[in-house]
Amino acid sequence: MRRKTRLIVALDVTEESKALRLAADTKDYVDAFKVNVPLVLARGMGLIDKLAKIGDVICDFKVADIPNTNRLIVDEVFRHHAKGIIVHGFVGEDSVRACVDAARGDVFVVAEMSHPGAERWNAPIADEIARLAVAVGAAGIIAPATRPDRVKALRAIVGDKLILSPGVGAQGGTPADPITAGADYIIVGRAIYDAENPRAEAEKITREIARAAATPLPR
Amino acid sequence: MRRKTRLIVALDVTEESKALRLAADTKDYVDAFKVNVPLVLARGMGLIDKLAKIGDVICDFKVADIPNTNRLIVDEVFRHHAKGIIVHGFVGEDSVRACVDAARGDVFVVAEMSHPGAERWNAPIADEIARLAVAVGAAGIIAPATRPDRVKALRAIVGDKLILSPGVGAQGGTPADPITAGADYIIVGRAIYDAENPRAEAEKITREIARAAATPLPR
Repeated sequence: MRRKTRLIVALDVTEESKALRLAADTKDYVDAFKVNVPLVLARGMGLIDKLAKIGDVICDFKVADIPNTNRLIVDEVFRHHAKGIIVHGFVGEDSVRACVDAARGDVFVVAEMSHPGAERWNAPIADEIARLAVAVGAAGIIAPATRPDRVKALRAIVGDKLILSPGVGAQGGTPADPITAGADYIIVGRAIYDAENPRAEAEKITREIARAAATPLPR
Repeated sequence: MRRKTRLIVALDVTEESKALRLAADTKDYVDAFKVNVPLVLARGMGLIDKLAKIGDVICDFKVADIPNTNRLIVDEVFRHHAKGIIVHGFVGEDSVRACVDAARGDVFVVAEMSHPGAERWNAPIADEIARLAVAVGAAGIIAPATRPDRVKALRAIVGDKLILSPGVGAQGGTPADPITAGADYIIVGRAIYDAENPRAEAEKITREIARAAATPLPR
């Protein structure tokens, strides 16, 4: 990824035309487009190829299967010119390693999710998953923008690996907080795709990111 | 599902023609076809509609996202006439409940996986995940055919919920052991789709299942 604006827009829509328009509208202000499973099930992987012509695409597929199946999923994703894929860490080292080995781009491991249900089994092992991500050579991790203290703690674990933080906007996180806490990118969905002017909203968020990033804070 | 042969064949191939031929060849001996993510990424969800005309389809998508995304995935799966979907439990109650609420068919929750990496974080919480599956009203759980003792232990937890057991054949499990231990269905992939005569192999396995099921053992 270019790491210019530090903003990733989540194309959490299910219409192809809407996804493509959103990508075209916001491309000047985002470093990557994040695509989830519902959109791909509805529109097929051909949409990834189309989006990849507009900008960098990260497939947020939360890959969580046995090593061989993970490998096949990752193969397919990069065959369609994605630049990155998001995979789960809790399935264990062999499954994550299979993704990293198969990837022709960045693998991001979900360290910690932000919904209430994640408190029970995911949150207690988030630090260990982050260590696993480092150990297997992943490009980075996913950590919740809604919990800047956790972003900070995970930054201390992953060193110079990338941290991508979803949950900004509709889920309650601010653009500034995760950046100040050490995130490399924030992921914004609804606040952009539901905005009357997605391009203007994306621009506004990049300004907030830039301000937060300019604030000198020890990492 | 019809619960006739208690055999589910995993269509773990990536060619549409091969998947359809395998389904047609084996349909008289299987209760359902299991489809995984690589096949759907390669061929699209239209293949699910085609397979659904041959027999019951279970989408093994290992769904593991936040509740709203899970709901959208489940919606899409049943829109294409699948009869069941396999989801992860570790993401927590809200995520699993979102699947059950959205499903127009059976939701199976992965209680325990069989690859080595699952020993670390999945195996220790398998019993709790099984209890969660019961609590949210899932149709059943996934438990490894390679570990009949675990199938037996999970049976004691889930009562009359269904247990589907993958790992028979190439991964080392026998058809008889998980059935004797209390599984309702066994899932067989490679041993059938790599067989010279998949139909004959499926028939052979159903005979082994029937023999094991006829052996009276206390549950």
